[in-house]
Amino acid sequence: MWHKLLDGLQQQDRKSLARTISLIENEVLGYDDFLQKLPSGNTPIIGVTGPPGAGKSSIIDALIGNIVAHQQKVAVLCVDPSSAFSRGALLGDRIRMNVWYKHPDVYIRSLASRGSLGGLTSSILEVSSVLQVAGFDYIIIETVGVGQSEIEIVGLADITVVVLVPEAGDEIQTMKAGLMEIADIFVMNKSDRPDAAAFLKNLLALKNSYAVGKDIAVVSTVAIQEKGITQLYDEINTRLDTPQINDKKLWLLTNRLYQIIQKKKMQSFDKNLMMEKVKQSLHENNVNLYQLASEWAG
Amino acid sequence: MWHKLLDGLQQQDRKSLARTISLIENEVLGYDDFLQKLPSGNTPIIGVTGPPGAGKSSIIDALIGNIVAHQQKVAVLCVDPSSAFSRGALLGDRIRMNVWYKHPDVYIRSLASRGSLGGLTSSILEVSSVLQVAGFDYIIIETVGVGQSEIEIVGLADITVVVLVPEAGDEIQTMKAGLMEIADIFVMNKSDRPDAAAFLKNLLALKNSYAVGKDIAVVSTVAIQEKGITQLYDEINTRLDTPQINDKKLWLLTNRLYQIIQKKKMQSFDKNLMMEKVKQSLHENNVNLYQLASEWAG
Repeated sequence: MWHKLLDGLQQQDRKSLARTISLIENEVLGYDDFLQKLPSGNTPIIGVTGPPGAGKSSIIDALIGNIVAHQQKVAVLCVDPSSAFSRGALLGDRIRMNVWYKHPDVYIRSLASRGSLGGLTSSILEVSSVLQVAGFDYIIIETVGVGQSEIEIVGLADITVVVLVPEAGDEIQTMKAGLMEIADIFVMNKSDRPDAAAFLKNLLALKNSYAVGKDIAVVSTVAIQEKGITQLYDEINTRLDTPQINDKKLWLLTNRLYQIIQKKKMQSFDKNLMMEKVKQSLHENNVNLYQLASEWAG
Repeated sequence: MWHKLLDGLQQQDRKSLARTISLIENEVLGYDDFLQKLPSGNTPIIGVTGPPGAGKSSIIDALIGNIVAHQQKVAVLCVDPSSAFSRGALLGDRIRMNVWYKHPDVYIRSLASRGSLGGLTSSILEVSSVLQVAGFDYIIIETVGVGQSEIEIVGLADITVVVLVPEAGDEIQTMKAGLMEIADIFVMNKSDRPDAAAFLKNLLALKNSYAVGKDIAVVSTVAIQEKGITQLYDEINTRLDTPQINDKKLWLLTNRLYQIIQKKKMQSFDKNLMMEKVKQSLHENNVNLYQLASEWAG
């Protein structure tokens, strides 16, 4: 089965791709071995992050348009549960997105987010590895965040695009260095709003004072009118063409390795079993979690 | 040393507390054993989360005022790198916060956030356990987030307060069920702004349609004027007085246990060593991270 799937993947067969991703997400027997035998692909991963409502889906939507117009292929992974993509799109988005869902050069997939309740770990890294051998020119990963969660995408993406809106003025003042560390490209979306000029000025000032030794691009867009998207497309490609600093590549790979090991290590810990153990300790009126952890994890 | 520290903690000695937290954060030899022998405390943990700029620090600041006025003791942990608390406070905040920093019933501490670069795991859980035996009536943990990161605080806090501002109107529409799952109490801060009424209406509508079987409180505040804070204080205490549903307590403890085990399991993996290994594979032109992970983690 796995052997055939790999063949299918490399022949860019969509059904094989969809099936492989499902098997990986569900950790079906043999998936680990499959991943270990997977040839390493080089498709660049572009992370798109930003707060809900900033317009990440619209940006990606317009970006797909540019990519497809260049006869290139793109895969989009949505990890943001609020994404218009993963929600299947509403209102005006519906028609446009339906086009992409059916387009032969576009593959869109939502991933279960790393929910807290079931202890389900996201398969984002594994799925990316699979997509990297399936003949795409770009992989776009959409995640929500203005906190710590987008740091994870930074460890995965070759290029990180942070989407903000002019109203984020207050926020950006308080985020400063953290944002500068994360972003390769800033997009100020909805740049037709009245406070855009002031926001842009702030953003550039921050960039100049904090982003020492790093060339962060700033792109203004009105995504739903497709304004500024060509410039974004160009900035992404300029950055991808630059031979990547070895240190960054090395850091990315190390970070990915760390995440794989962490997932592996935690695989055998069943939250339901843990809950039973905790329940028992509660009955015995003796709950020291560190002691329990020590007994459990050795 | 550790034995003396525990005595100090239980006598509510601040120097012992500060020292213990530092030793735990730095994982000084013996800290694990210390945690395993720590009596289990019951001080409730109140998580305060929300996007940057929503006014979490001002809310906490005013809440401290209420707590102290009731002759109660409070510890505040800041995990939000943009927090006015962890930044040492600016402008008008400075005078007020300086008062709290020196107040005998208030203990404020910033924690290093789980940075991506060094692979440093946050000690938030361990530090909370220490605070729980140090004679406080409340522990408040401030984290930033409108994405996945605040899910972590949900797994830790007995009560989670989500702070929003009226401008978040768009955001809340896209977050919906996720937010409802997270929050025990919603605070609409800056409720003197013009769009507050409309936002409140949306929030209540969402609450009614999504938060089935859960009683989420909604509190309007103007934190810098201390408006609405007494109601927030009361809502928190009402919820703490309710005998907690056993399922939630159990889930919280299980989640904490999972986090402790994860940290334990990853302790022996040195990112610098990993980086060397990856570098070597790059030289040999043979990088399959899953293979590396398998060799490494067994």
